[in-house]
Amino acid sequence: MVLGQTAAPTADGCCPELLTAPLAEDQAAELAKVFKALGDPVRLRLLSMIASGAGGEICVCDLTPAFDLSQPTISHHLKLLRQAGLIDCERRGTWVYYWLLPETTDRLAGILARPGRPAPAAPRS
Amino acid sequence: MVLGQTAAPTADGCCPELLTAPLAEDQAAELAKVFKALGDPVRLRLLSMIASGAGGEICVCDLTPAFDLSQPTISHHLKLLRQAGLIDCERRGTWVYYWLLPETTDRLAGILARPGRPAPAAPRS
Repeated sequence: MVLGQTAAPTADGCCPELLTAPLAEDQAAELAKVFKALGDPVRLRLLSMIASGAGGEICVCDLTPAFDLSQPTISHHLKLLRQAGLIDCERRGTWVYYWLLPETTDRLAGILARPGRPAPAAPRS
Repeated sequence: MVLGQTAAPTADGCCPELLTAPLAEDQAAELAKVFKALGDPVRLRLLSMIASGAGGEICVCDLTPAFDLSQPTISHHLKLLRQAGLIDCERRGTWVYYWLLPETTDRLAGILARPGRPAPAAPRS
């Protein structure tokens, strides 16, 4: 996973600091890759569909019909999400299945939360 | 603030859901703008310097020397962070002072946190 592999761990082994200390150049470069992957509406919608998939995963065959985009375009967006460590996938027969890697979103949430003020959890649906 | 102004509020008035339900197109478009602003290493470093500035703010004169970039380039990055609702600024005499708008980072942290699992706060420095 990009973020975990390369960002220098802090004292508690968690996350680079964003809001409490100037970010080091290498940490900023790694973190920017993940945020850049999230900086696109199609990828955000794909991520939210994957994260909320029944059973914790979703078939690519259920993703594509939600978009007015070609299969290769969807595949490209999925590849960028995967390269950012946000999702993973597995082929089973004809279809590829995708799931969220919540450790990456957890880390981003931790990085964005103010110290001593845990982020409010998103409302339950 | 971009995120607060346009994303449809959820039942508790908080944040669009990212991990628990498919994101609506308009919410994805607004949210992507903020993540895109974070998807650049220079902007992330600027944001972290601004957020950790003594007294909660920092003079642009203290930001520029940290980068091997021209003043107009730095100003452009700061403008994008401001347009995303992540920071605000005020001119005082010769210099412009910047500060974090923590409600935006709080919202992003909330959006990325798993329901019922508040994000771990970043370690205190």
